[in-house]
Amino acid sequence: MERIDNFKTIVDKYNIIFFDAFGVLKNYHGLVPDIERTFEYLKEQNKEYYIVTNDASRSPVQLASSYHKMGLHAITPDRIISSGMLTKEYLYLKVYDGIVAYLGTEDSAHYIESLGLHPMPVSEVNASNIDNVNALLFLDDEGFDWARDLNIAVNLLRKRTIPAIVANTDDTYPATISDVSIAIGGLANMIESIVGKSFIRFGKPDSQMFMFAYDLIREYRPISKKEIVMVGDTLHTDILGGNKFGFDTVLVLSGNTLPQDVNTRINSTGIVPTYICDTAVVKNDI
Amino acid sequence: MERIDNFKTIVDKYNIIFFDAFGVLKNYHGLVPDIERTFEYLKEQNKEYYIVTNDASRSPVQLASSYHKMGLHAITPDRIISSGMLTKEYLYLKVYDGIVAYLGTEDSAHYIESLGLHPMPVSEVNASNIDNVNALLFLDDEGFDWARDLNIAVNLLRKRTIPAIVANTDDTYPATISDVSIAIGGLANMIESIVGKSFIRFGKPDSQMFMFAYDLIREYRPISKKEIVMVGDTLHTDILGGNKFGFDTVLVLSGNTLPQDVNTRINSTGIVPTYICDTAVVKNDI
Amino acid sequence: MERIDNFKTIVDKYNIIFFDAFGVLKNYHGLVPDIERTFEYLKEQNKEYYIVTNDASRSPVQLASSYHKMGLHAITPDRIISSGMLTKEYLYLKVYDGIVAYLGTEDSAHYIESLGLHPMPVSEVNASNIDNVNALLFLDDEGFDWARDLNIAVNLLRKRTIPAIVANTDDTYPATISDVSIAIGGLANMIESIVGKSFIRFGKPDSQMFMFAYDLIREYRPISKKEIVMVGDTLHTDILGGNKFGFDTVLVLSGNTLPQDVNTRINSTGIVPTYICDTAVVKNDI
Amino acid sequence: MERIDNFKTIVDKYNIIFFDAFGVLKNYHGLVPDIERTFEYLKEQNKEYYIVTNDASRSPVQLASSYHKMGLHAITPDRIISSGMLTKEYLYLKVYDGIVAYLGTEDSAHYIESLGLHPMPVSEVNASNIDNVNALLFLDDEGFDWARDLNIAVNLLRKRTIPAIVANTDDTYPATISDVSIAIGGLANMIESIVGKSFIRFGKPDSQMFMFAYDLIREYRPISKKEIVMVGDTLHTDILGGNKFGFDTVLVLSGNTLPQDVNTRINSTGIVPTYICDTAVVKNDI
Repeated sequence: MERIDNFKTIVDKYNIIFFDAFGVLKNYHGLVPDIERTFEYLKEQNKEYYIVTNDASRSPVQLASSYHKMGLHAITPDRIISSGMLTKEYLYLKVYDGIVAYLGTEDSAHYIESLGLHPMPVSEVNASNIDNVNALLFLDDEGFDWARDLNIAVNLLRKRTIPAIVANTDDTYPATISDVSIAIGGLANMIESIVGKSFIRFGKPDSQMFMFAYDLIREYRPISKKEIVMVGDTLHTDILGGNKFGFDTVLVLSGNTLPQDVNTRINSTGIVPTYICDTAVVKNDI
Repeated sequence: MERIDNFKTIVDKYNIIFFDAFGVLKNYHGLVPDIERTFEYLKEQNKEYYIVTNDASRSPVQLASSYHKMGLHAITPDRIISSGMLTKEYLYLKVYDGIVAYLGTEDSAHYIESLGLHPMPVSEVNASNIDNVNALLFLDDEGFDWARDLNIAVNLLRKRTIPAIVANTDDTYPATISDVSIAIGGLANMIESIVGKSFIRFGKPDSQMFMFAYDLIREYRPISKKEIVMVGDTLHTDILGGNKFGFDTVLVLSGNTLPQDVNTRINSTGIVPTYICDTAVVKNDI
Repeated sequence: MERIDNFKTIVDKYNIIFFDAFGVLKNYHGLVPDIERTFEYLKEQNKEYYIVTNDASRSPVQLASSYHKMGLHAITPDRIISSGMLTKEYLYLKVYDGIVAYLGTEDSAHYIESLGLHPMPVSEVNASNIDNVNALLFLDDEGFDWARDLNIAVNLLRKRTIPAIVANTDDTYPATISDVSIAIGGLANMIESIVGKSFIRFGKPDSQMFMFAYDLIREYRPISKKEIVMVGDTLHTDILGGNKFGFDTVLVLSGNTLPQDVNTRINSTGIVPTYICDTAVVKNDI
Repeated sequence: MERIDNFKTIVDKYNIIFFDAFGVLKNYHGLVPDIERTFEYLKEQNKEYYIVTNDASRSPVQLASSYHKMGLHAITPDRIISSGMLTKEYLYLKVYDGIVAYLGTEDSAHYIESLGLHPMPVSEVNASNIDNVNALLFLDDEGFDWARDLNIAVNLLRKRTIPAIVANTDDTYPATISDVSIAIGGLANMIESIVGKSFIRFGKPDSQMFMFAYDLIREYRPISKKEIVMVGDTLHTDILGGNKFGFDTVLVLSGNTLPQDVNTRINSTGIVPTYICDTAVVKNDI
């Protein structure tokens, strides 16, 4: 574990950089100040980069567009790898027809129809269509009535033996500087425990997330895991997952892990990043 | 483990009978058919009985009144021991002043004010009063907006180091013949796991529930645990708790445990009742 | 939560004091220095006291004798309430005949025969006697071959639907100033998770432990929970259990909870003692 | 979910077949009777196959040799993908120098030295070398003294913030027709829970296991996940993992999942194989 003063050192050392989104590139205020300098330097140095995010609430096109609105134009849809993309691949490979019920917004369910499947908010599942429901997706904590629809989801899984897929493994996400919100991953954990069945989860720290990103690159050029570094603000997702997959890892202190807690947290969890750096911002040499 | 044909055998054998409520005396339709015969026989034989229930949604007076409305007059408030009563005792002994925030209906919070404490629905907790909140109660799954108020509860527990008390340990309760609803115990488990703190739970199978009932009787006459039998429909609460406390136990098959599943469930959980009986109804001799 | 300088304040305030043993009265070196002064003062002030311990490895007579050898004569067998005593009561009330298999030393199983049951080390369970085994006890981490006997225990519980009782809920215990040892409670957790059955646990923080102690006193005089204080070094057992039962609680910093960690631990667990005091030693007034 | 009478149907339908080892190809008696016919047919039809096994106790060369001794010569070392190989890759990528402590046999640790690292049984870790220990591996349940060495492992992880890698995710393995043994995965779960740190696990159902196999094939020819089927006897590892990775799956009833339990297990776990087939044996057409 090495302390790094300037994120430039990291860019200079690796050919490919994977960034977590929230807590690394942006936070509740908007972009992390001066983060655009990092992308300028990446371009200058001809380095590759990807955003690897547990965000299944929107499509890569929508996610990229939100960066553009904040003034960061370097992040294009093809640079974004989300847990939603793994959910989509799962449906493509494993669910052949029928209704796919979901908890989330309409935006989060945007791709279901394009796979020839019938998306249906959980609220519309009833006795007349339940036998045609072939999967249940946990996509987003918004877009539905928790009390009504979490109960429908529980009863759907008690009556139908179908896969339940969680497209975001986070328990909570930061809502304001002082508050968090329960994420769809937290709600899914409750329902999995209640119904006693095994859910399928996509998202860091699970390896499949990193493999999906790694594969995208290997399609056009050979790479080794040693060329890649994962940059994140959360020990249990970004760093644990990156380490397990075999990547070097950088913990930044601009999000979930606060500077005053970093040593305690590393010791108590046993999750050790290769580097620690205050932010992912490249500072100009003086 | 012994199969019993007529619940009369149980009444003849023990001096005091503890009944679970839901699945034993009543279900979604109303009373279990002919259950009043059991209470007539108990009276005839001069046997004592108590209802020991994980129900914190209403006071003993309100619970008794609901039996009266269904036509069962033998159940008076002094016969009812609920997890809500343990929560009340906890507040009396351990919380001296200030606000007690709660998730549940106004009915479920009825006793807080009588203890000299200030009850407040979680929805009303805000920056101006949060420092006066000295406990958080999980009372009922109804009476609040899940999405809004579960998030407020998470942030309250992140900001304040206060006891969180769960007045009902059940994950779900039966809502109709085919559907269950998520109970406040299930919601509390999710929040405990998210905030990583240790909650205090009252309700079967916890011993404190049985001790509270046992103590009520000992106040007016000496008894031994061997005189008491616990009757319930759920292995994990009624039977496990009763066994652990040292009571003999009767599993009835009129609720959560179905006749066709009973052997599998006992073997897979390792929770063995002293007796199994179809229902808690005393059949007339022929 | 109040900081107390001299444990004398506590003795002056309560009529009955419950002490945890390890980390409060003794540690790996022997007695906590000057702890005998506390017992002199208790006697002077005519206060009652009990040792409430998750120690099922020896009988109260043997435990008391170990204090006498260290020079503390105030602790007599009738002052000691151990999780082993609850296990004994369980066997008395719920297991009527046959073999009681156990993991532990011969000392830890000393009382089984006096109940008219046949104690048998797990190592002696085999095809010829397995059908007569009516309970499995987890008593001590010593006295058996872990690799051989933990495997026998797993297979015993797969073949026989019998109660499994854990007489010590601790995961580990301090072995030297720098090292811990895995306790029988930790081994039992592993086996419970492997066989998927529900074990019965006796020991703090479970209420039954406190009730057993509370009842001993009530047999000879009426008391209220408000007269009793629980003194311990561990938030998750002594303090959580004492709080839940309705006692006031004192966290001492001479054992599991170190002075430099106390605030972090209280905030991260949400378990709040009524008082914090460096040790349970009564200091002389100056 | 489709019932298949003859495993030949599966071979005819897919280009590449992944087999679990224990319960599919072999059991405690030796080879599954007639399983060699399956490999003859695979060869005849020019189909590819791999053994994907949570077995880190021996090298692929040793594992292949054990099949040869039983008379199955079709399984060569290059056909075997074990969780031990992932552990080796992790050490290669992430541990640069120093001592790698391990729990297991010398055989299970065979590859550590070839990576330029210093393998050391946990029993030899002591105050003089502990600061040079840079990883702890859980490899096999044999080859060490459980009571002594599990305690050393706990204290090693309390003192050093190093990665703990579990090379086999199974809790137990079948030891005889009626008995199981606790596997190193079960022991590792206990220690992870005791020390409260996050371990790294390699083995089914984790995706990284399937990816490693998938990648081996892609190195010499392009494939799609649709061409591959995973054959296993265990819902929670082979089938859950295969499904999640996007493969079709076959549950065989010659191992962990018994014919009389299969429907109950699928419904209670929610893990649904694409096909169910009695065994992986190709039956001759009549």
